[in-house]
Amino acid sequence: MPEIIIRKAQKEDCPRILQLIKELAKYERAPDEVTVSLSHFEESGFGKNPVWWGYVAEINGRTVGFALYYIRYSTWKGQRMYLEDIYIEPEYRRLGVGNLLFEKLIEECKRLKFNGMVWQVLEWNELALNFYRKYNAGFDNEWVNCSLNV
Amino acid sequence: MPEIIIRKAQKEDCPRILQLIKELAKYERAPDEVTVSLSHFEESGFGKNPVWWGYVAEINGRTVGFALYYIRYSTWKGQRMYLEDIYIEPEYRRLGVGNLLFEKLIEECKRLKFNGMVWQVLEWNELALNFYRKYNAGFDNEWVNCSLNV
Repeated sequence: MPEIIIRKAQKEDCPRILQLIKELAKYERAPDEVTVSLSHFEESGFGKNPVWWGYVAEINGRTVGFALYYIRYSTWKGQRMYLEDIYIEPEYRRLGVGNLLFEKLIEECKRLKFNGMVWQVLEWNELALNFYRKYNAGFDNEWVNCSLNV
Repeated sequence: MPEIIIRKAQKEDCPRILQLIKELAKYERAPDEVTVSLSHFEESGFGKNPVWWGYVAEINGRTVGFALYYIRYSTWKGQRMYLEDIYIEPEYRRLGVGNLLFEKLIEECKRLKFNGMVWQVLEWNELALNFYRKYNAGFDNEWVNCSLNV
């Protein structure tokens, strides 16, 4: 088994993470939806007022996956981790990389005293649903996502 | 028609906003879900690292509604406003308070150069859905909310 390194994402990781974000969007059947620029992405994570944080997974010096979160403020529960993305390249799956990343996030939640972790999954993504079921995640179908361009 | 004042929420508004949050949770059939404390709520909005921002609506000195948002980081679109809550007391509806609040949020999105506004609505909340339809909001049913207690 190759050694898997999980570490905090740095500014230098941004180009590679953005590449992986685009791979993930393709898998989610929305390849043209990624319109964020590298400079906006970097500034949002490592500028004066960061609004996202992340971890990367490395195998033999290659970044094979990442997880990215921001702080959600729930008026019911307070500060929670919102897991925006977690992704492992297909050829590096079944090695436990996803588990290591996910468990690192849980650790981070505890360290930052967040009241839990929340995220969304596409209803047809059985692979992801099964992964989350193993952690006894709760699922709630009752909400509709809304958006407005301004 | 009474005069409606829309203004930025201040720390002093927190006790009243938390009251309204509880009213809203009752309407959403989850009255016991609000477990956030006043001190955590205040600290999260007005401490060293604020993670939420809000507006209140006043009529004759009474806070009759509020809107609360945080910054969502979308790996597809960049920084967006996540509208966590918007609520008007039932006896002060049909006066246009919701529109004034919602339009103030749109203005704020533009000012802060957010790439749009996103939020969630309960699928059975026809009143809210109709309100959002008037603004040509997009609706997406394909995602499932997930959560994990840590």
